[in-house]
Amino acid sequence: MHQEHHVNSSETIRDIVIGMSDGLTVPFALAAGLSGAVNASDIVVTAGMAEIVAGSIAMGLGGFLAGKTDLDHYHSELKREYDEVERLPEQEQEEVKQIFAEFGLSTDLQQQIANEMSKDKDKWIEFMMRYELGLERPDPKRAKKSALTIGASYIVGGIIPLSPYIFIHDATEALSGSCIITLIALFIFGYFKSKLTGQPPVSGAIKVVVIGALAAGAAFLLARAINNNH
Amino acid sequence: MHQEHHVNSSETIRDIVIGMSDGLTVPFALAAGLSGAVNASDIVVTAGMAEIVAGSIAMGLGGFLAGKTDLDHYHSELKREYDEVERLPEQEQEEVKQIFAEFGLSTDLQQQIANEMSKDKDKWIEFMMRYELGLERPDPKRAKKSALTIGASYIVGGIIPLSPYIFIHDATEALSGSCIITLIALFIFGYFKSKLTGQPPVSGAIKVVVIGALAAGAAFLLARAINNNH
Repeated sequence: MHQEHHVNSSETIRDIVIGMSDGLTVPFALAAGLSGAVNASDIVVTAGMAEIVAGSIAMGLGGFLAGKTDLDHYHSELKREYDEVERLPEQEQEEVKQIFAEFGLSTDLQQQIANEMSKDKDKWIEFMMRYELGLERPDPKRAKKSALTIGASYIVGGIIPLSPYIFIHDATEALSGSCIITLIALFIFGYFKSKLTGQPPVSGAIKVVVIGALAAGAAFLLARAINNNH
Repeated sequence: MHQEHHVNSSETIRDIVIGMSDGLTVPFALAAGLSGAVNASDIVVTAGMAEIVAGSIAMGLGGFLAGKTDLDHYHSELKREYDEVERLPEQEQEEVKQIFAEFGLSTDLQQQIANEMSKDKDKWIEFMMRYELGLERPDPKRAKKSALTIGASYIVGGIIPLSPYIFIHDATEALSGSCIITLIALFIFGYFKSKLTGQPPVSGAIKVVVIGALAAGAAFLLARAINNNH
């Protein structure tokens, strides 16, 4: 068999990307925004840490619930398919035929497929789950792993833009440091993310940097405008 | 034909859910966290607005890029499939047979399917795209719509927890107001979200409320701890 050719990034990598992409961007932009309004780094650090905790919990638990929901959804649909195959086998055979009718197979061949498919009920139902409903059997441990991976990646990502504010008291000075290391981190992150998802890495990296810079710039301008109005 | 039974929430609803779920949770938790550290609502409002701008841009543009990436990915895989069907038709026929071998169809029937399928090249490739690679043709306007929907939902969600801080100067008092309206809003949001995605609505609503409360509580405790160390 020839090797299948498309890039299929694993679910863990997807979770790291989800967590880190927001973790690098949002605390960075928030800290930049606050630097436009307050001079002392203390408040920026406090707000930034509060944001990192809030964001990692919200995203991590969000990932956990999403995983649990997928699992529940899969099992309720599976039960429903077993039920339907039991009660209305002709209708389910009709659905198999329908799938192949769409791809232009002859009625005769559709019927043969439906007949053979219905001999093994488990495989028949697996086929319906996958190709009629588009559902893959999810890993039951996924939800927990997903929550931890997303949450931890958010924290790791968020510490990077915040670190200069921890060491430099003047918020405006810390902002320059934060911009430099975060834009570099965003570039590296964007580069590997694009590589892993089969995109052109340099243009992918630039896109990620631009998003971060836009978000931070907008937050900075808005926070300064609010502050000037006081 | 009998009506297909599963709930399939539209993509716009999915985008509203993505934006609003983070929009309600993260600014709420950030504002709660800051109230544990500063007394004046001004800073909470400034930080909260900076967060909303940062979050809506980061998530909106993130959604835009994700949509664009899906589109690019689809077209590059489509091109590759056309290419392979042209150059290695036997191998692609082998892949069709492989799909049906998994579901226990006889070699004879596998061969018939592969033969008939390969008569219409476009449909054959559409079949491979959908059932071998699991890719649906994406809507080319999706990326832009998705970005706007996610961003706007984030802003709408974020304004809710922040509004008490705008009107009440004392941050601790504003916090109580923010908790009340946000937990109610999270419950309503969780209720409809669960309904639309076919989950039990009340338990779904409670889960969403618990995530928001946990994130806000953790942010509050952490911000106060940081502040007490100064």
